[in-house]
Amino acid sequence: MQANFSALSPLRFLERSAAVFPDRVAIEHGSRRHTYAEFGAEAQRLAKALAARIQPGDRVAFLAPNVPELLIAHFAVPLAGGVLVALNTRLAAHEVKYILEHSEAALLFADTELLATVDGVAQLGGPAAEVPVVVVPDTESAGVSGTGAPEAAAAVVRGAQGRKRELYADLLAAAPDGPDLPWGVDDEQAPITLNYTSGTTGKPKGVLYSHRGAYLNALGEAHHQGFDGATRYLWTLPMFHCNGWCTPWAVTAAAGTHVCLRAVRAEAVWDALDDGVTHLCGAPTVCSIIADAEQAHGLERPLRITTAGAPPSPTIIRRLGDLGVTVVHVYGLTEVYGPYTVCEYQSAWDALPADERAAKLSRQGVGMVQAETARVVEVGTGPELRDVPADGETLGEIVLRGNNVMLGYYRDPEATERAFEGGWFHTGDLGVMHPDGYIQLKDRAKDIVISGGENISTIEVEQAIVSHPDVLDVAVIGVPDERWGERPVAFVVRGRGSELTAEVLSGHVRELLAGFKVPREIHFTDQLPKTSTGKTLKHELRALAAVEGAR
Amino acid sequence: MQANFSALSPLRFLERSAAVFPDRVAIEHGSRRHTYAEFGAEAQRLAKALAARIQPGDRVAFLAPNVPELLIAHFAVPLAGGVLVALNTRLAAHEVKYILEHSEAALLFADTELLATVDGVAQLGGPAAEVPVVVVPDTESAGVSGTGAPEAAAAVVRGAQGRKRELYADLLAAAPDGPDLPWGVDDEQAPITLNYTSGTTGKPKGVLYSHRGAYLNALGEAHHQGFDGATRYLWTLPMFHCNGWCTPWAVTAAAGTHVCLRAVRAEAVWDALDDGVTHLCGAPTVCSIIADAEQAHGLERPLRITTAGAPPSPTIIRRLGDLGVTVVHVYGLTEVYGPYTVCEYQSAWDALPADERAAKLSRQGVGMVQAETARVVEVGTGPELRDVPADGETLGEIVLRGNNVMLGYYRDPEATERAFEGGWFHTGDLGVMHPDGYIQLKDRAKDIVISGGENISTIEVEQAIVSHPDVLDVAVIGVPDERWGERPVAFVVRGRGSELTAEVLSGHVRELLAGFKVPREIHFTDQLPKTSTGKTLKHELRALAAVEGAR
Repeated sequence: MQANFSALSPLRFLERSAAVFPDRVAIEHGSRRHTYAEFGAEAQRLAKALAARIQPGDRVAFLAPNVPELLIAHFAVPLAGGVLVALNTRLAAHEVKYILEHSEAALLFADTELLATVDGVAQLGGPAAEVPVVVVPDTESAGVSGTGAPEAAAAVVRGAQGRKRELYADLLAAAPDGPDLPWGVDDEQAPITLNYTSGTTGKPKGVLYSHRGAYLNALGEAHHQGFDGATRYLWTLPMFHCNGWCTPWAVTAAAGTHVCLRAVRAEAVWDALDDGVTHLCGAPTVCSIIADAEQAHGLERPLRITTAGAPPSPTIIRRLGDLGVTVVHVYGLTEVYGPYTVCEYQSAWDALPADERAAKLSRQGVGMVQAETARVVEVGTGPELRDVPADGETLGEIVLRGNNVMLGYYRDPEATERAFEGGWFHTGDLGVMHPDGYIQLKDRAKDIVISGGENISTIEVEQAIVSHPDVLDVAVIGVPDERWGERPVAFVVRGRGSELTAEVLSGHVRELLAGFKVPREIHFTDQLPKTSTGKTLKHELRALAAVEGAR
Repeated sequence: MQANFSALSPLRFLERSAAVFPDRVAIEHGSRRHTYAEFGAEAQRLAKALAARIQPGDRVAFLAPNVPELLIAHFAVPLAGGVLVALNTRLAAHEVKYILEHSEAALLFADTELLATVDGVAQLGGPAAEVPVVVVPDTESAGVSGTGAPEAAAAVVRGAQGRKRELYADLLAAAPDGPDLPWGVDDEQAPITLNYTSGTTGKPKGVLYSHRGAYLNALGEAHHQGFDGATRYLWTLPMFHCNGWCTPWAVTAAAGTHVCLRAVRAEAVWDALDDGVTHLCGAPTVCSIIADAEQAHGLERPLRITTAGAPPSPTIIRRLGDLGVTVVHVYGLTEVYGPYTVCEYQSAWDALPADERAAKLSRQGVGMVQAETARVVEVGTGPELRDVPADGETLGEIVLRGNNVMLGYYRDPEATERAFEGGWFHTGDLGVMHPDGYIQLKDRAKDIVISGGENISTIEVEQAIVSHPDVLDVAVIGVPDERWGERPVAFVVRGRGSELTAEVLSGHVRELLAGFKVPREIHFTDQLPKTSTGKTLKHELRALAAVEGAR
C-alpha cells in the first residue's frame, strides 16, 4: 500500500460519515429513519450479500422510485465490486428488456410498485426474462428496511410465468458474516455505475461513470449547492437520472440528511418543506409544482432549488423568490454526470430590471468548480475545434471535457469515438457563448423550426411566451405547413385562475420577436407531457398538433 | 487530448474564478485591491516572466510575509512549471542559506522587510549567495503590485557585497508577450511546492507537495471551512506554513476574498474583523490575540477560526464564543498539507457541561472529507501496523495516509522510506484513539517528562492548567532534577487583570492530576516564545528555566 495515494471513490464518504456521525439521521422516508451508522451497516450487509452472488464488474440493475434501498444501492453495489444500473421507472417493459440485455445485468432489484413492468419483461421472454429478480417491498411505514409489510411482499414473490422471485429481506439475511468490505477501489477509473440515456432518437445508450468522476462530481455538487451537516435534501430528482446528479454521494459526504420521496406530489413536497428541507433538485416542473401548489406559503428556512432541463420561467423564479426560495439553473447531460455548468449569480445583476435579470438567470452558465471551461464550437469542423465568437449570437455546438465526462458508451466504442472527436465531448446541443463567458442553450439541434427558410429557435419562442406573468410552462414545436415548410405551434400552461387568451399572449410575443417567429396556433393545456427527467416530450405534442390541426 | 480526463491542479481554480468573477475583489491589502481578473492576469504575467528564466521543475524561493505577491506566486510559479518554496520569514540567514542550497533554488524573491536576511545570506557566501534575488517592495498603499514606492525600492536594489538585485516590477515588465500559459499540468502527481519543516531536531526537511494533493486538500478545506463567494478570509496563518494549509487555492476555488496581512497585530486584526472577515486560521496565539485585545467586542458577522498547534483553551473558546466566534480545532503536519483531522462538532455535545464539552473540543478529531481515517498504532512494530485499542487511554503513534500525504522528502529517499513504513506516514506524534473514533494528541514524543520513573505528558499537565479560567496560555517543560531525574515546570500567561497566584493554580491542578504531575515551579509571563507557526519554543523555556532555577 502506498502511503501517499488513495484511489478516489465516493464510497469513502459513507465510510467516513458512518464513523464520524453514527447517530445522525442519514435517511428519512415516511416514518422510517436510518442513522448514518445504520446506513453504513446496511450498505455493508447488502454488499456482502451481493458479493456472494456476483462477479467483480457485474452489472446490477435497480428499478425503483427514490426509496432508501436505491440510495443504499449507490454504495452497496460498487462496494460489492458491481456496477449499478439505475433504471428509469417510466420505461416500458420492452425498454427495460433492452437495457437488461444490453447491460447483461446479473440481478434486477424491483420495487413492488414496478412489478407490472417486471412481469412484462418476463412475458417478453429472452435473456432479460432470466435475470433473477429481488423484490423490494414498500416499507415506507416500517422501522427497518426490508422487514416491513412481509405478507404483502410475499404475495408478489411468485411473478409472471411462475418465475420465483426473492425478497430483499431474504437476500440480506443470506449475507455472509465476516469483516466489512473495504470502502474503496484499487483503480479510481474503475466503473461505478451505468446510466442509460432516454434514447429519444434510437436505442438508449449506456453511459459508464467512474469512481473518480463520481467522487469529484459529488464534491463539486456539495460545493455549489452548499451542502453541510445541517443539510436536509429532498429527493425530488430521480436517482435513476445521472445517479441523481451524484447527490447520493454528495449529501453523504457532507453528512446531511436524505429525505426520500416515492412520488413528487405537491402535498408531500410541501409537507417536507415545512419539515425544514434546505435543498432539492429537479426539472422546472418541480418548481411549478411547488410554486403553484395550494399549500404554497412563505418558508421559515431558506430553500435552494437547483433546476435543469429548461430555463426556469421568470414568473416561477419570482413566485418562488417570494416564498423564500433561491433557484439556481444548471445544465448537463447523462454523459457528464448530470450538471456541468451552473448559472453563477453575479452581484451586479441585483441592479438590473427584473426582465434583464431573468434573462441572465435563464442562461446555462459556466463550468462548475470541478469541471473545465465549456466551449461553443463551429459545427462540423471535424477533430479541429474552432470556438465561435463570444458574441451571444453565433450558434455553435456545446462541447465539454474533463473528469466529469463519462468513461464512454458501454459496448459502443464507435459511438464513444464519435462523441469524443477532437478530445471534447460533443453534446449535440446548440448554443451561444456570451461575452461574459456564460453559455446559453439555443436549441437541441432537432428542435429548430425552419419556416419560410428562416431558422426559428423554439427555445427563443418559448422564452418569449414564458416571460408573460400568467404563463407557467410552455413548449413550442414545428409542424408541417404547406406554404412555409414548417410553422411554430405553442402549448401553454397558464397559472391557476388565469384567463389569459391566445390573442393577448400573441400580442405579448409580437412585442418581443419578429413576426415570423410568433406562433399562429396557441393551445392551452393543463400540463405538458414530460419525460421523467423533465424534458418535454415534443413528439407527443407533434402528434397532438396533427390531431388538432386536422379538426 | 483525452475528453474524459483532466489532471487535477489547483491552477484551474484561478482560471475559473478569473473568468467567472472578473470584477469581484480577490485580494485586499491595505488600500490595495485586486479583482479576480487582475489576480489571474498578474499570475500569468509573473508566470511568463518566470518561464523565460527557469527550467521546468526548477525551485523558486519566496521570502515574504502574507503579501499579495506571495499569494500570486502560489499560482504563478507552478504555472511557469516551477516549484514554489515559501520560506519561513523568521529563519536566520544560515537557515535560509541551507534551504536555498538544499532546494537548489533558481531564484529568490524577497520582501523589502526581509532584505537583512538576504544580506546575511550573501555575506555567508557559497552557492546560496549566487541565487539571483528579486526584491518585492512593500506596496501596501500602492494601487497595483510592483509599481508602488519605486524610490524606496530602488535604494535596496544594490544589496550586500554589491550584488545586483532586480526589482519585482522590472521582472514583470520583462515578461514576454504571447498567449496565456495553460492553467494546468500533464501529470497531476507533478510537484507544485516544496515546504521545509521547522527542523527543531536536526536539519529542515523538504516536503514535496503535488498538484493532485493540493487540489484535493484545497477542496477539503473549502468544504470544512465552508468557503463560498461571500467568504472574506483573513491571512493570519502564514502562507509559508504548509502553503497556508492550501487555503490560497481553497479561497480562490470558492472565489472568496483574500484579505492579506503583513503582521498579526491585535489592532490590524480587529480592523479586519470589523470589516466583515468571515474566516481565519492560525495557532492558538491568534485566538488569544483576538480574545484578549482591548478592541474586542461582539461581532456583527459570524467568524470561524480554524486553529491548530495546540488545543484551544476552554477559557479562550468561551471568550471567543461570547464575541460570536466559532473555534474549530484541527491537527496536521507539514507532511500532510496542513490539517488532516478536524474536531467535528457533535450536536450531542450541546447538552454537556462546559468542561466536558471543552474536553471533547480539545481533541484532534477525525480525518477530513478528502483524507482517510487516521490511526493510532503501537510504536515500533515495524511495517506491520497494529491499532491500539480505541479506549482513549492506550498511547500509540498517530499514522496517516492518502492523497494528502506528501510525495516525499526532497532529496532524501531514506527518510521518506522510514516515514512511510508499512504504507502509512508516521507522524512521530503520540496519541490515543477514543471510542468515538476521535484521536487525541497526547504528546509530541520528545515532550514527555520522565519524573521518578513516571511518564508525565506535558500536554496533560498543560490542559489541567489551562482549564483554570484565568489562564490564557501555558507551556510545561521538563527540567533536570537531582532527585527525580526530571520535573515539570510551567510557564503561564494570565488573562488581563488576573491576580491568579501559583498557590491557587497549584491547588486547581492538584484537584485534577496525580501529585507527581503537578509542577512545583510555576512562572507567570506575559507571553510564551513561539515559532511563527504557533508551536511553543520549549527549548527557549528550558534555557529560561535553567536561569530561573540557578537564582
